[in-house]
Amino acid sequence: MPPAMREGGRLVVVGGVAAGMSAASRARRLRPDIEIVVFERSGDVSYGSCLLPYFVSGAIESRDSLVRVTADSFRNERHIDVRLHTEVTAIDRARKKVTFRGPDGDGDISFDVLVLATGAAAVRPPLPGIDMPGVVTLRTLADGESLRADLESGRVRNATVVGAGYIGLEMAEALSARGAAVTVIELLPTVLSTFDPDMSEFVERELHDRGVAVRKEARVEGFEPGDGSPRLGYVITGGQRLAADLAMVSVGVRPAVRLASEAGLELGATGAIKVDARQVTSEPSILAAGDCAEAHHIVTGRPAWIPLGTTANRQGKLAGENAVGGSARFGGIAGTNITKVFDLEVAQTGLTERAAAEEGFATESVRIRSVTRAHAYPGAGEVRVKLVFEPDGGRLLGGQIIGREGAGKRIDTIAAALHAKMTISDLSDVDMSYAPPFSPVWDPVAMAAL
Amino acid sequence: MPPAMREGGRLVVVGGVAAGMSAASRARRLRPDIEIVVFERSGDVSYGSCLLPYFVSGAIESRDSLVRVTADSFRNERHIDVRLHTEVTAIDRARKKVTFRGPDGDGDISFDVLVLATGAAAVRPPLPGIDMPGVVTLRTLADGESLRADLESGRVRNATVVGAGYIGLEMAEALSARGAAVTVIELLPTVLSTFDPDMSEFVERELHDRGVAVRKEARVEGFEPGDGSPRLGYVITGGQRLAADLAMVSVGVRPAVRLASEAGLELGATGAIKVDARQVTSEPSILAAGDCAEAHHIVTGRPAWIPLGTTANRQGKLAGENAVGGSARFGGIAGTNITKVFDLEVAQTGLTERAAAEEGFATESVRIRSVTRAHAYPGAGEVRVKLVFEPDGGRLLGGQIIGREGAGKRIDTIAAALHAKMTISDLSDVDMSYAPPFSPVWDPVAMAAL
Repeated sequence: MPPAMREGGRLVVVGGVAAGMSAASRARRLRPDIEIVVFERSGDVSYGSCLLPYFVSGAIESRDSLVRVTADSFRNERHIDVRLHTEVTAIDRARKKVTFRGPDGDGDISFDVLVLATGAAAVRPPLPGIDMPGVVTLRTLADGESLRADLESGRVRNATVVGAGYIGLEMAEALSARGAAVTVIELLPTVLSTFDPDMSEFVERELHDRGVAVRKEARVEGFEPGDGSPRLGYVITGGQRLAADLAMVSVGVRPAVRLASEAGLELGATGAIKVDARQVTSEPSILAAGDCAEAHHIVTGRPAWIPLGTTANRQGKLAGENAVGGSARFGGIAGTNITKVFDLEVAQTGLTERAAAEEGFATESVRIRSVTRAHAYPGAGEVRVKLVFEPDGGRLLGGQIIGREGAGKRIDTIAAALHAKMTISDLSDVDMSYAPPFSPVWDPVAMAAL
Repeated sequence: MPPAMREGGRLVVVGGVAAGMSAASRARRLRPDIEIVVFERSGDVSYGSCLLPYFVSGAIESRDSLVRVTADSFRNERHIDVRLHTEVTAIDRARKKVTFRGPDGDGDISFDVLVLATGAAAVRPPLPGIDMPGVVTLRTLADGESLRADLESGRVRNATVVGAGYIGLEMAEALSARGAAVTVIELLPTVLSTFDPDMSEFVERELHDRGVAVRKEARVEGFEPGDGSPRLGYVITGGQRLAADLAMVSVGVRPAVRLASEAGLELGATGAIKVDARQVTSEPSILAAGDCAEAHHIVTGRPAWIPLGTTANRQGKLAGENAVGGSARFGGIAGTNITKVFDLEVAQTGLTERAAAEEGFATESVRIRSVTRAHAYPGAGEVRVKLVFEPDGGRLLGGQIIGREGAGKRIDTIAAALHAKMTISDLSDVDMSYAPPFSPVWDPVAMAAL
C-alpha cells in the first residue's frame, strides 16, 4: 500500500480515459487538498471507447456526446490538472518522478503516488501493407473520427473486417449500416471465439442473414493498393485478392505495459501489470488500473486479463481511493460482457466450456432454447442460454446468452450467481420475475438451470 | 411426506391451471404407470392467467394462444384424465376420497395422493350493485372472454377500475387501448401499494401522462344502473355518481381454501394452506401448491402468501414430484414480480422499506436515477432503482425498479442477490455487463448498490 498521502501531496495519473479519470475523480472527491495531475497522450479524456462503433455507424451523431466529462470540466470543476497531448516517457521509481513529452517540450514531475492507467493498444500484425491508408484499427476517439469521415466520404463500398471478435462484429454492423458490403475474415473456425462454438453459430447465422460474408479459417496475408491509388484496394487472403476500400483490423488488443515494464514493475503471466486486490503494483507507491492491469477472476481464483470498460471504471475508482489512503479491495471480475450483433444480443459471464476445461475444471453444460417473452405475447423472440457447471456438486462456472431483444441483460443474474458461488441448483431456485411482456413463466435462465 | 406411490396408484389433482397441471405433468413424467386425474371447475386447463389483460386489450389476438396445452393434449399425449366443468365438493381424509359434481352428475373417487391447486379467487366486496352486469372481475379465461366481447361491442366509453394494484393497472392500460376513458379508484394514498410511495409516484405520473384519471384515498360505495338499462351506468364514490359503462373490480385476491379448511387441513397465519418445504399439508397424503398455499419467504424466513404464476409453476412441479415419491424442497420465494404500466416497467423483489419495517427489520434505503442505456446511445430511458438493506452489516432486503424499456428484468439480479444473502456491498462487487445499447458503464443496479 502507498503511505497515506501527505497534505498537499501530489497524485500523478498516466492515462485519462476510463480508469485514469475514474481514479483522478475519486481521489479528488476524497481529498480536496492534494494536487492531481493527469497525463493523456491524445487530445481527449474520459471518452467512452465502447461507444466508438456506434459513432462510426452514425447511431450516435455527435462527437461531443462520446466524451463524458471534458478536460476543461475536469480542470475547472474538479481542479484536476489534465495535460492533453502529453505522453509520459519514463518512470523513475527511486526519485518518484515521471518524465513527459508534451506540446511545450519535455519535462518531469515528481509524485507521491502514481496511478498507471495506460490502457491497451490494438494489435497491428506486421503484414505487408498494414500501414497503408485505408487499413485501420479502432481504439481511440481519433481513430473513430477518421474512420467516420472516411465512411461519410462515400468511397467505402467494400469493407473487410479482419478478426471476428466483439469489436470486429460491432464494426461489421456499423460498416453495413453505412452501406458497405462487408466481409469478415477470421483465422479460427468460429466467429466470436470467446463463446463456445455451439453458441457462436447463432451469431454467424445472424451475420449471414444480414448479408455479411464470413470467411473462417482464413488468414490475411497482406494489403495492396488499389489501381492508381495509394489507398487500400485489396486484402490478400488465401492467395486471393479481395476488393476492399477499407480494412478494419480487429485482431485483439494488448496491455500497454512498456512504461511499467521499463520501470521494473512486475508483470503477471497474462502480460498485464500485476496488482494486488488494492490495485497496488510491485512498487508500493504505484498503482495500476484498467486495461493495463490484471484482475482477480472470481471463478478461477487466479489473475486474468480481460480488458473491459466496466472493469476499468471499477478498478480506476478503487485505485483513486487507495492512492490517497484508502484500503478498498477489488471484488474481482467474472469477465461479464455483452454486445449486440445486428438484432442479436450476445452476452457471457464466467468461463465457457472450453475455457473451463483449459483451466482444469471438470465441466458439464446445458443449453436450452426459449423465448424472451411469453409465447403468446407479441414480439417474443428466440433466446438460447448455455450454462457451464462442475458435474460434481454442480457449481456454476459460467453462462452464455444469445437471443433477441431483452435476452442479453439476463447475464447479470448469472454473474450474481457466480459471485455468490451458487450451484446450478441454487440458480434454479432463484425466484425470478415473470410477466408476459418480459419472459415466459420459467425465465430462460431458470429453465436452463433447471 | 406421502408414502411412495404404489404401482398403478392414483394421483388426484384439484385445479387444472398453473400449479395443478404442472403437478400432473411432472408426476406423469416420473411415473408412467400411475393413474392421474385432474378436476377443473372451468372449461379450460393450463391457461396463462397473467396473459388475460393482454387478451382483453387485443395485444394477444387468439384465445387459443392463452392455453399452453389443451385438455385433449393432456389426455391423449400425457394420459392425464382431465375432467372439465367438474368441481370437487369435499375431501374425505379418512377414506382418502374426494366427491365431485360434474356435467354427468355427482361422484366420488379415491386417491393415494391428493394435490390441491385450487388457486385464489378475486375478492368481490359486498357493495350495492356489485352483481350488476358491467361490474366485472378478471380471474378466469371466461372472465377475459366476456370482458373482451363487451369491449369489442363498442359500448364501453367510460371505464372505472376499482383498485390500483398490478391487475388494476394492467387493466387500466388494456381498457385505454380499447379506447375507453379510464378512471382508477384506489382506497389507499398511493397506487401500486406493494411498492414504496417514493417509487410508485412514477407509476402514477405515467398513468397521468397517458390520460388515466386516478382518484386516491377514495372509497367506492356502490354501483348503479344506467338510465333505462339494467347494466352499470354509475360508480358511486365519495357520494358522487361517476359515469361508467364498465367497472373492473380488482381489489385483491384470496386463497381458495374452503375445501382444505372443511377437510380440516391446517391453514397458516396468512390464511392460505400451510405446507412444508415439500408442499405437504398437515395431512401427509395431501399436498398443496400455487395460489392456495403458503410459501417460505427467503428474506423474512417466515411463511408468506404472495400469489404469482411463477410460484404456482415452481410449487406445482415440486408437488407433482413429491406426490409420487420424490422429496424435493422448495427454494422459497422472494416475491419477485414485474409488470408493465404503459411504457413503464415496474418490478420488485424481496421487501419494500415499509414491509421490512413491518417485519421488524431495521432498514435503510438508497434510491438512484439512471438510464437504461449509455447516455449517448439513442433510446436511453430513465430508470429508478431502490434498494432496501439493513444498516448494520448491509444485508440486502429488497429492491424495486421502475423505468423504461429494458429496466425491469434487472430485478432478477437483485433476486439472485437476495437468495445468496448478499450485502449491498457484495452486490456492488458483482461484475455486471456493459455495452452502450444495454446499460451505462455502471449498471443502474450496481450504481444503486454502490
